[in-house]
Amino acid sequence: MLSKNQIKLVSSLHQKKYRKEYGLFLAEGVKVIRELLASKFELEHLYMVEELFDDLPAKFKTLVSTVELNRMSALTTANNCLALFRIPKERVLKEEGLIVALDDVRDPGNLGTIIRLCDWFGVSQIVCTKETVDLYNPKVIQATMGSVSRVDVHYVDLEVFLNSTKLPIYGTFMNGNNIYKEELPNQGILILGNEANGISEKIENKVAHKIAIPQFGDLQKTESLNVATATAIVLSEFRRGF
Amino acid sequence: MLSKNQIKLVSSLHQKKYRKEYGLFLAEGVKVIRELLASKFELEHLYMVEELFDDLPAKFKTLVSTVELNRMSALTTANNCLALFRIPKERVLKEEGLIVALDDVRDPGNLGTIIRLCDWFGVSQIVCTKETVDLYNPKVIQATMGSVSRVDVHYVDLEVFLNSTKLPIYGTFMNGNNIYKEELPNQGILILGNEANGISEKIENKVAHKIAIPQFGDLQKTESLNVATATAIVLSEFRRGF
Repeated sequence: MLSKNQIKLVSSLHQKKYRKEYGLFLAEGVKVIRELLASKFELEHLYMVEELFDDLPAKFKTLVSTVELNRMSALTTANNCLALFRIPKERVLKEEGLIVALDDVRDPGNLGTIIRLCDWFGVSQIVCTKETVDLYNPKVIQATMGSVSRVDVHYVDLEVFLNSTKLPIYGTFMNGNNIYKEELPNQGILILGNEANGISEKIENKVAHKIAIPQFGDLQKTESLNVATATAIVLSEFRRGF
Repeated sequence: MLSKNQIKLVSSLHQKKYRKEYGLFLAEGVKVIRELLASKFELEHLYMVEELFDDLPAKFKTLVSTVELNRMSALTTANNCLALFRIPKERVLKEEGLIVALDDVRDPGNLGTIIRLCDWFGVSQIVCTKETVDLYNPKVIQATMGSVSRVDVHYVDLEVFLNSTKLPIYGTFMNGNNIYKEELPNQGILILGNEANGISEKIENKVAHKIAIPQFGDLQKTESLNVATATAIVLSEFRRGF
């Protein structure tokens, strides 16, 4: 039996301020937890409704009821297990390769999907404004499907970072140059903007190369692509030549 | 004041069998509703928490409380308006152009995103297996952001359809040919598979051209791309040359 206080602690981790206070985050489901166990993340504890993860010592595991798991879970429908991991120290950002920069991406599903895409396309570093959704939000962790273990996410003052970098700076804009006709480098910063407002003006000022994904057929039928699908297309364009 | 029965009727439309019975579907939020009003869809009624859509005759509109709207809404957090539209007759499928085919895509967000992508890339027809999530599921309508008014979705026996078509048939597979090296036509069928299982064996047998989006860097790091992001990349590849 879990105490009320234990359940309260775990579910408090749905909120950023408690994740920061305790230095812990939640991951749910066998697949995501297995990926995190196999990587740099340190397990604090595992809660499960049935015996799982035979290779883990008993001291890390607690059997709980479905009701208890549901009360701790950040998902609408809880999985069969939930783990607490320690939030690792941020690694040092290296100015090399292709780096994705996010200017206030707010939706957890979008950040998770973008991390998964970066993993696929060999982008190991993301820089974000501090207003971007927290990497350790349970819905972000869920949407990464484990890719979070292979992509470093850095929260920075994006304007200051862009001022200092020597890498070429690309950004997506509705009125940018046709991306299919651009020569894209294998090193650089690629900026994607907020879901509603795109890239902010102060960040736009730092962008040397404005690119756009052209619509096919009649113009101006739809407003824009979702930021995660735009990232998919742009990363594919950056990588297809290499 | 709305009667309990009215609220019950509207919220019954969250379920496919009642949408079919009444021939109605739900759309929520000013943006989506405006797009549907501007297109082929016929409005049945609009419920709103404040005066909206000045151009609509009063007989189509009912002011409701936030509590009432929340009880009718299919969203976790209701918008400020909700409309019922009539489900139109299915149009006739034309075997021309690029057609996207979905083999049991189950997630409403994925179908909605795919419809939005088809709209962007000038694909006006989608064919689906009958097991694919219903187009008029409120979460699909929401995720299309209005693109549903410009893309026709047909539920068919996909195997029979593929047997009879004269268009070249493409499908995405983990072990397919590198899509970046393929010559892609501007007419054809492009098949995407189920979230967990990909394209089924009986459909795979009909695919003449197996294509894959190559991973960048070390191989086999992640299992696969999400079906919506894969669609984004593949449609971009089909259209970039034209």
